[in-house]
Amino acid sequence: MPGQRPLLSNRASSDISGERDIAEEDALLTGRPTQRTTSGPRTWKFWREIGLFVWAVVATALVVILAVVYQQSSHDSRHSSPHPTGKRNLIFMVSDGMGPTSLSLTRSFMQFQNGAPFGEQLVIDQHLIGQSRTRSSSSLITDSAAGATAFSCAKKSYNGAISVTPDHEPCGTVLEAAKKAGYMTGLVVTTRITDATPACFAAHVNMRQEEDRIAEQMIGDYPLGRVVDLMFGGGRCHFLPNSTVESSCRADDKDIVAAAKKNGFNYVDDRAGFDKLKGGAAVQLPLLGLFADTDIPYEIDRRNENDIYPSLHEMAEAAMKALSEATRDSDKGFFLMIEGSRIDHAGHHNDPAAQVHEVLAYDKAFTSVLDFLKNDKTEAVMVSTSDHETGGLATARQLHTSYPEYVWFPSPLANATASAERLAMNYATYLLTANPSDAQKASFIRSSLSSGLGLADYTESEVSALVADPSTSLYQYADMISRRSQTGWSTHGHSAADVNIYSSDPKAALPLVGNHENTEVGDFLREYLGVDVEAVTKELREKGAGLMVEEEGGEMVGWMGKVPEEGRGSMGRIMLRAMGAISGRGACFMVGTVGVGTE
Amino acid sequence: MPGQRPLLSNRASSDISGERDIAEEDALLTGRPTQRTTSGPRTWKFWREIGLFVWAVVATALVVILAVVYQQSSHDSRHSSPHPTGKRNLIFMVSDGMGPTSLSLTRSFMQFQNGAPFGEQLVIDQHLIGQSRTRSSSSLITDSAAGATAFSCAKKSYNGAISVTPDHEPCGTVLEAAKKAGYMTGLVVTTRITDATPACFAAHVNMRQEEDRIAEQMIGDYPLGRVVDLMFGGGRCHFLPNSTVESSCRADDKDIVAAAKKNGFNYVDDRAGFDKLKGGAAVQLPLLGLFADTDIPYEIDRRNENDIYPSLHEMAEAAMKALSEATRDSDKGFFLMIEGSRIDHAGHHNDPAAQVHEVLAYDKAFTSVLDFLKNDKTEAVMVSTSDHETGGLATARQLHTSYPEYVWFPSPLANATASAERLAMNYATYLLTANPSDAQKASFIRSSLSSGLGLADYTESEVSALVADPSTSLYQYADMISRRSQTGWSTHGHSAADVNIYSSDPKAALPLVGNHENTEVGDFLREYLGVDVEAVTKELREKGAGLMVEEEGGEMVGWMGKVPEEGRGSMGRIMLRAMGAISGRGACFMVGTVGVGTE
Repeated sequence: MPGQRPLLSNRASSDISGERDIAEEDALLTGRPTQRTTSGPRTWKFWREIGLFVWAVVATALVVILAVVYQQSSHDSRHSSPHPTGKRNLIFMVSDGMGPTSLSLTRSFMQFQNGAPFGEQLVIDQHLIGQSRTRSSSSLITDSAAGATAFSCAKKSYNGAISVTPDHEPCGTVLEAAKKAGYMTGLVVTTRITDATPACFAAHVNMRQEEDRIAEQMIGDYPLGRVVDLMFGGGRCHFLPNSTVESSCRADDKDIVAAAKKNGFNYVDDRAGFDKLKGGAAVQLPLLGLFADTDIPYEIDRRNENDIYPSLHEMAEAAMKALSEATRDSDKGFFLMIEGSRIDHAGHHNDPAAQVHEVLAYDKAFTSVLDFLKNDKTEAVMVSTSDHETGGLATARQLHTSYPEYVWFPSPLANATASAERLAMNYATYLLTANPSDAQKASFIRSSLSSGLGLADYTESEVSALVADPSTSLYQYADMISRRSQTGWSTHGHSAADVNIYSSDPKAALPLVGNHENTEVGDFLREYLGVDVEAVTKELREKGAGLMVEEEGGEMVGWMGKVPEEGRGSMGRIMLRAMGAISGRGACFMVGTVGVGTE
Repeated sequence: MPGQRPLLSNRASSDISGERDIAEEDALLTGRPTQRTTSGPRTWKFWREIGLFVWAVVATALVVILAVVYQQSSHDSRHSSPHPTGKRNLIFMVSDGMGPTSLSLTRSFMQFQNGAPFGEQLVIDQHLIGQSRTRSSSSLITDSAAGATAFSCAKKSYNGAISVTPDHEPCGTVLEAAKKAGYMTGLVVTTRITDATPACFAAHVNMRQEEDRIAEQMIGDYPLGRVVDLMFGGGRCHFLPNSTVESSCRADDKDIVAAAKKNGFNYVDDRAGFDKLKGGAAVQLPLLGLFADTDIPYEIDRRNENDIYPSLHEMAEAAMKALSEATRDSDKGFFLMIEGSRIDHAGHHNDPAAQVHEVLAYDKAFTSVLDFLKNDKTEAVMVSTSDHETGGLATARQLHTSYPEYVWFPSPLANATASAERLAMNYATYLLTANPSDAQKASFIRSSLSSGLGLADYTESEVSALVADPSTSLYQYADMISRRSQTGWSTHGHSAADVNIYSSDPKAALPLVGNHENTEVGDFLREYLGVDVEAVTKELREKGAGLMVEEEGGEMVGWMGKVPEEGRGSMGRIMLRAMGAISGRGACFMVGTVGVGTE
């Protein structure tokens, strides 16, 4: 505007010859003097300088902007700093026993049930970033203890090791180090909170079977004191004294709930208590929530008992809300481990109907975590993986000696309304309480097959086999579904298959993109949080040196319990014990024949 | 230097007050006049301008550099253009029948054999980018024909379809469209070149069994004329007339080799011929190389017959070299499909020893491709995936009713020096030629078990079973290795498991990162090459309309052959036929019991 002063000058503006401008520029670019070399008017020179200055400033500003944008973009596509300075949350999800085939099994079931097209994915499918190799230090096939130790300590150890190294020394865990660094911490599971996976984050014992001792350590009675702020899951029986509580599975009369309260824990033990937490908004930390004596029932059964047991995604949501609120004013965030624990059990049972509902429940919890991350402002990442595959699951099964048709049927899984475990428990209870005749047993079984398994085509020989051998009924029920859907299994144990890795953010989880050793998952956890796990290892070894505890029977042993005998094949006994605990009623399920054979 | 002229001026230099400089800069930055506002010497003004100009030019140059770098970096991390303008090569590798578990199986075997640490990966492990869902339009479990049609046409079709849609119309393939666009094309396999996977790229028939017809189409006797420039593999028997050649497996006396030569093909049919190609340097295209009557032997057997059969990686290297040379002066590159065909057969046979050597051979070919890409200047990408999993393979197997130990043993696979197929063929040949007594059979078998399978611990009952039932000897031999290594299988057919996707370049193959439908792999192939597959479909349908060919027996049928009967369970027959062909000696391998059972 006329009369107005230009931004960078106190002098009045005036007309400038555009031609002159160009001539001057030529001179500057070529180094040759123009015609008017030094004789131009003062205003022209001034404007030339202003022009040059504006050019320089604008170009410099562009340099700064582009440099920042490029820096940002480079940062995005690289490994996040191993020592974060900002506040961070880390949610680590474990799909225990879920191999790659569990996904194709569940996805096809979901498509069948929902009438969805073949392109329809599970939510988790959309977040695949890599695979993890799972072997332990003692075998090509890991158990959940060595598997979780690879996550918690980032170290290979032997099958059965709960965050101890092969030389039976404790190794610090990412959860312990996170707590030391000022993070809040949580564990959410559907199995016993004392089972291998959760135990590995906040306990150290030489044999995973020592769940009584694990319960004591997890509420803080061990060298580091209390490190977990929130625990949701099952496993109440390991926290209650065997002298006064009938459902106790402890070998002694210690009251670990009382000890937890002494250590500051709030305690809830039922659905009503969980509901009072108002989805996490009314949580007072530390909090111990134990919602089942042993495991929380399979989702296929739990969905009809929603008034008794919270679901995995409900527990996950409450935990995220509570930990987020509790760290609102902190410069540190939280570390939360969420486990879909019983995908593994469905694999052990070779029960495909139970498994697809477990995987769908995990997918729902996975979605809850994504939703939380979307709405929460704190920098965060979720990583999800499995410790191992269970069952040698195959979405194909050859039933006869003739060459198989290429088919797999989801419909028998959709027809089943109960797990094989639940049907076997019902049958065991019936046998114990009714003292029935064989004809009465057969009638009971027919009813369970039609109403529980949704079978219209069961044979009398199948009924007779269940009458004749109730001890293998769990496997018999599961096998009836497996055969009809043509689902294959190679074992009731684990396999050495690589398992998938998923993440909410492939860029933040870049070190886990591709094929990795399970210990690299452990490396990522500690590096993302920027915590010093080695210092915890040192502290554990120093404080634990010479520390003895009393065994059942009065013998004194090191604080991490007895060391397993060399070459001891413990897994069979562990599973049988676990399965006894699962029934909760003393019924014993013998391991029957493997599901895959020939008719 | 004194007296020297500054770069951008013809004028002599002179001293400048540094203080003045700073004062002037302040003035420019703040807009306030300095003390000497307009009274400075002319040289000072000049230098001020020069300074400003240099600043502006440098900043502008930085803007340009940063913009280019940022543009480059943004481009790198995004999907490459669907319509490339530059020259491109695309190498598509197919690991037929290789599921995720084949990798953990082979990796553990490799580590055992090489004494390598647990962190040692296969080469392919280092290039994992995602997984592919594999179902066909007719079943949750695909066969290789529908699987390859998803790659070649990017369309779902029914099991048995060779690049035809479910309504039995031909669909154009990426190879055909590439040829039309000016690319050179090649197919390298270890099975018959007329088998489903290679056939789907350059033939169209309604039933995969019609390998005679496929052979005719692949050498150019079909509506599009010749589209393949190079073919390496087995399957000679489908190219030779049954009237004069004993090893022919054609149903007629057509000489397809002669027809190929008439269509311009050069022809090699043995190792000597292959060696004369000098690793591809001496190839004259088009070239047909058929190195076995049916399949090239399993790598575990072939490695001792290297003077008869070229290896997969040798064929792949020669093909890449030849296609690269042939396109050196072209503005289009090449499309090459390389298949590790017999990983699938080892799965069908439930033979883990044969399988690990097949996967290692594939890994070696994979490495050859990476090496080629590293040394070749043309923009290129390699994508590797499987069409499906075969066998329901599990690296775990429960042998007894008692709960299994968590173990899997690679040593029995390392001790085996022959495939179960080779041992069964030897046994069948012995029975046909020697007419032995049972005692002689037992002696023959004991020798094959110790020298071929490397077994010291075979039982007399295992020997007796082989004496008693030679027709299932292939499965019996394979099962002996599977049980001893505790390798599980759920079927002799295929399964519905997701399979892995690998690439030489995750950025170029970004559309395949994560979990994808197999048709998306097909989409990627055509988009990377920027070719018009739909135009080929149109051309095929127009030129093929009303085109009839003569069936064996004189009946006239459409050029793509008969349409399969509705609901026809064809796979069993196909496999039995294929297995008859595999033996090449008329021996028939009946399908025995499934490998996974209880002792």
